[in-house]
Amino acid sequence: MSSLSVAWEDIERARRSITPLVHRTPVMTSTSIDSAAGAKVFFKCENLQRTGSFKFRGAGNAVSLLGEAEQRRGVLTHSSGNHAQALALAARLHHVEAHVVMPENAPDVKRRATRDFGATIVDCPPTHAGRIDTAARVQERTGAVFISAHDDPCVIAGQGTAVYELIEEVGDLDLILAPVGGGGLLSGTLIAAKHLLPGALVIGCEPAGADDAYRGLQAGKRIVEFTPDTIADGLRTPLGENTFEILRKLADDIALVSEQEIVDSMRLIWERMKILIEPSSAVAVAPLLNHSLDTAGKRVGVILSGGNVDLTGLLPQGR
Amino acid sequence: MSSLSVAWEDIERARRSITPLVHRTPVMTSTSIDSAAGAKVFFKCENLQRTGSFKFRGAGNAVSLLGEAEQRRGVLTHSSGNHAQALALAARLHHVEAHVVMPENAPDVKRRATRDFGATIVDCPPTHAGRIDTAARVQERTGAVFISAHDDPCVIAGQGTAVYELIEEVGDLDLILAPVGGGGLLSGTLIAAKHLLPGALVIGCEPAGADDAYRGLQAGKRIVEFTPDTIADGLRTPLGENTFEILRKLADDIALVSEQEIVDSMRLIWERMKILIEPSSAVAVAPLLNHSLDTAGKRVGVILSGGNVDLTGLLPQGR
Repeated sequence: MSSLSVAWEDIERARRSITPLVHRTPVMTSTSIDSAAGAKVFFKCENLQRTGSFKFRGAGNAVSLLGEAEQRRGVLTHSSGNHAQALALAARLHHVEAHVVMPENAPDVKRRATRDFGATIVDCPPTHAGRIDTAARVQERTGAVFISAHDDPCVIAGQGTAVYELIEEVGDLDLILAPVGGGGLLSGTLIAAKHLLPGALVIGCEPAGADDAYRGLQAGKRIVEFTPDTIADGLRTPLGENTFEILRKLADDIALVSEQEIVDSMRLIWERMKILIEPSSAVAVAPLLNHSLDTAGKRVGVILSGGNVDLTGLLPQGR
Repeated sequence: MSSLSVAWEDIERARRSITPLVHRTPVMTSTSIDSAAGAKVFFKCENLQRTGSFKFRGAGNAVSLLGEAEQRRGVLTHSSGNHAQALALAARLHHVEAHVVMPENAPDVKRRATRDFGATIVDCPPTHAGRIDTAARVQERTGAVFISAHDDPCVIAGQGTAVYELIEEVGDLDLILAPVGGGGLLSGTLIAAKHLLPGALVIGCEPAGADDAYRGLQAGKRIVEFTPDTIADGLRTPLGENTFEILRKLADDIALVSEQEIVDSMRLIWERMKILIEPSSAVAVAPLLNHSLDTAGKRVGVILSGGNVDLTGLLPQGR
């Protein structure tokens, strides 16, 4: 059996690398959500992380571990979401050039945020092939180092630092929940949690409308071809090769949730905790509220992964 | 010159009384808001306080300082807003009965929240006279102790504990901003801040569409008759007698902000900090962004007063 692409030592090293850059995000609790869940729930608020999501941890670690020659070449990724902003800021803080390939129909708000952090945006056709081709061309032209949003071992190691801080702060946990899309967050969470709290169950949470991880782990084979149908825009990607192996070896289970449960959970967190979470984060809250897991009386950690909601049309524009 | 209704010692006592009940709310910072303001800004997040606003501090203090006989009589207020929920929870935690007089057209969400905290709701006609008359009848029938939302000295003292915690955490500040409606929060903030940091300027922030404090302080006479026209629903009330005296003696200035500035500031905090604040809170953020105050290079404390936004219609309902 081959060893995994990421080890506990990589997470320890990531912790040292990124501590000067990241926010130590708060751990929040809510009496009313505890009552609803029948459990003691600790929310690790990565929605309050810089750039609005945990992605800054992984991107920050990947950029900080580049050698000097690589840093001079710059970094490159394709993403229309949180990884784009995260890599842009991480690169800027390290004085490294960043190129982000984005589908030409990406929302203006994400485009602007990524540009505001100093990245060069390269438009591409809104297809998988379009992304790959465009990224290859940019790489050829610039020599930039490609940093995958979820399958790069340095990115996975960085993501594991969130649960590391959570456990450091609250101690023992019976159960840990994290959303799963490309699997970077869940993989890092598994490596860290299984080292620090071997007795804790770690469960990935996935929309039923994008259940590739659930089905792939059942079948023992990574699923890459599927058509996601979910509001949780951060979780529409398939697992990577590294993350699939890590989940296969370490994940205790995958919990599936419905679209209605995602929306209801998001609303409950906004209403009761007064923090913005995006739909992908709500996916890891829903299993507490639909009672599909045995959480009664347990100590549960939840990684709230991000808060990047497009507020256009949500808020009054003034008069 | 008569002494004020609230002294520093009252705030120290309030701090001891309410510490077991209140959340020690986090102090948040934001690089992008610092850049926009040209200052170092520390946000005291009372939107993350129990019941979603600072009001729980004042109500908690008022209920905790009741004698045993008074506690048996129960408490009473009229409010359609944050004080209603705050008093309801404070009473429940002290095993005291609470009666809340609410206009019959109050939003269902506020009515439900207040009832969920265990208060008895008494409907009244949606007029000032209707509130007063109904409260008087309830008081006659029950003997309950009336606790004003902003002019009760125990309430004012409780509100002062927010800035007390802020200063304890971040140290010296050049400038402190708090919204002003009935004046309870600003009064408590003034008493505490002028004791702890005599050199700091403390400025009340008020919607131009409800500028009774601004005009009243200019004229040296409390203004009670005016028709507020502002989205900041927590700031539509006139100053009380006690709060007017405290502001007159201690407030350094009142900053007025427009409706557009309120909406823009609210949106900016949601977008950049991923926390929900209500329009009344945004009123204390706006003067940082419109550059009407000299904040360049200064250390500024802002009390984010609450996060109770009615999300009905804002969020998707699922499918």
